[in-house]
Amino acid sequence: MSIPDTMRAVVLSAYDGRPESLKVEERPVPRPGPGEVLVRLAAAPINPSDLMFLRGTYGVKKPLPAVPGFEGSGTVVAAGGVAGKLLVGRRVACGASMQGDGTWAEYIRVPLGQCLPLRAHLSDEQGATLFVNPFTAWALMDLARQGKHRAVAQTAAASALGRMLLKLAARERIPLVNVVRRKENAELLRGLGAEHVVDSSEPGFEERLRELFHRLGVTLAFDAVAGPMTGHLLAAMPPGGCVTVYGALSEEESRIPPGAFIFERKRVEGFWLSDFFLSGFGPKQLRALMNVPALVGREMETPVRARLELTKAREAVKLAAEEMTSGKVLLVPG
Amino acid sequence: MSIPDTMRAVVLSAYDGRPESLKVEERPVPRPGPGEVLVRLAAAPINPSDLMFLRGTYGVKKPLPAVPGFEGSGTVVAAGGVAGKLLVGRRVACGASMQGDGTWAEYIRVPLGQCLPLRAHLSDEQGATLFVNPFTAWALMDLARQGKHRAVAQTAAASALGRMLLKLAARERIPLVNVVRRKENAELLRGLGAEHVVDSSEPGFEERLRELFHRLGVTLAFDAVAGPMTGHLLAAMPPGGCVTVYGALSEEESRIPPGAFIFERKRVEGFWLSDFFLSGFGPKQLRALMNVPALVGREMETPVRARLELTKAREAVKLAAEEMTSGKVLLVPG
Repeated sequence: MSIPDTMRAVVLSAYDGRPESLKVEERPVPRPGPGEVLVRLAAAPINPSDLMFLRGTYGVKKPLPAVPGFEGSGTVVAAGGVAGKLLVGRRVACGASMQGDGTWAEYIRVPLGQCLPLRAHLSDEQGATLFVNPFTAWALMDLARQGKHRAVAQTAAASALGRMLLKLAARERIPLVNVVRRKENAELLRGLGAEHVVDSSEPGFEERLRELFHRLGVTLAFDAVAGPMTGHLLAAMPPGGCVTVYGALSEEESRIPPGAFIFERKRVEGFWLSDFFLSGFGPKQLRALMNVPALVGREMETPVRARLELTKAREAVKLAAEEMTSGKVLLVPG
Repeated sequence: MSIPDTMRAVVLSAYDGRPESLKVEERPVPRPGPGEVLVRLAAAPINPSDLMFLRGTYGVKKPLPAVPGFEGSGTVVAAGGVAGKLLVGRRVACGASMQGDGTWAEYIRVPLGQCLPLRAHLSDEQGATLFVNPFTAWALMDLARQGKHRAVAQTAAASALGRMLLKLAARERIPLVNVVRRKENAELLRGLGAEHVVDSSEPGFEERLRELFHRLGVTLAFDAVAGPMTGHLLAAMPPGGCVTVYGALSEEESRIPPGAFIFERKRVEGFWLSDFFLSGFGPKQLRALMNVPALVGREMETPVRARLELTKAREAVKLAAEEMTSGKVLLVPG
């Protein structure tokens, strides 16, 4: 395989969320250093975390200009060291480093440890979305297991990640309350076999949530929405409950009645996949790596609704921001 | 001492915060059961927690009509059992039970375990405010010790409780950042020897808080204000920080930027003195009981600004709600 000197890449010039701050540019193809490989990308998704990154509200700001994109799939085409040579020619899923350029490009240089060879049954598209959602879903369910919670809840339940949690909870036989913000998503989830679905746009939402949380014993909720939702979840729980915020789709501050903290021993924490992996490689991380890839493409499939070339990055971002539940938007280098 | 059949008591008829829902009534003097004593009250304070109780936002709602007031001081005048007889004639501080009537009355029936004999150096007034603020201040500082926090912060720092925390932090040599909402309170605290004082009404408040929190290593903040303040505190901290909400003087929801939870391993919890004592009697509680009464009236004095008779309960509540920092308002049965 011959590697060109230059490539096309999507480049971000300002953290302001404006379409004009994203451009497609010609850039030098990076060269892998020791312990790194060069991947020719096949597909890269636009995740909610990417949208936060573009707006400057994500947990990491790279020096600008920078190539966005935290995950993707492709083929290893070169290696900077001996170990990496074993991967040349293999299809991999890869996660971008938090320092360097991302996956919205034709090529990316990644550390070996952030590449996972793809088995034959996994398509490039499922491989491209292997890291962020499946591992987050797994790690969240791990919090439920470790904390011995009798039942759990989640918001944005119809999202790609929400549906993965639905499958994992069913596997583990942990009752799961699914909160959605639109009627059609409630129906979608029921169609997927969800037993407990609550629509926050319906009257009586808070009472219904409270009744369910108390009846099932929900003491842990995964919140991808923030805004007033964080407070609704916490208020609905029995004493001692915990909300774990892992997303902010509402783009609003979490609002919480202080009495929940003071009088009911409740708390709010957060989850970031980056911490899950950077906190060291222990049994938790090993279990995730052993299990997640095998589940993806089977029980944890990511629906895809659009594939756009890099040159259409602005349109792709707009599309992804409009609506998440009907499937991922992927960038596919031409 | 002769005990009359009836007494005057302040009676709450609705949890709506309206003055008309408070009346002074003639009621039978309660009779102490086994393990209980009858206390003729000398003084009872109006604390922020009482104001929450009147509005129905406190952690406990007693069946109405009920006598408010969570603490007070007085003289034991009768006992329901043998053990209590030893206390008859003694001056005590007492805490009302969470089920029965409170201290805004001429007499109260309390469990023996909620009476603490007062040493001679302690006035009725300091005794009346012995439980709620001093024990809360002590228990909060205990959280700082147990969590090995290098430095801590507090809001509403000029309150009676805030000044106690100032003294305790100085004793323990734990750096304390004091957040106030008014210029005159900043001056008051500096006059009391506070080294780090930040006024949230000044421009640049958030930046200044952030600079101080990072320089001193503040990873725990005690928040009595809630509203946007909870979020300001959390945002200003280094990663891993915790805000412990113990009051809600702003009467607003806590508002927190979700990124603080997701990307910075920060969390918000609560503290309620009732949990501190009801969680069982262990070394923590014993240490508090050994230390707090000795500190009160010396290092942890409660300033008193007004003494009103029970018949003026409505006026007293209004006075207490208007402004807290210049001293407690006490109800003194005539």
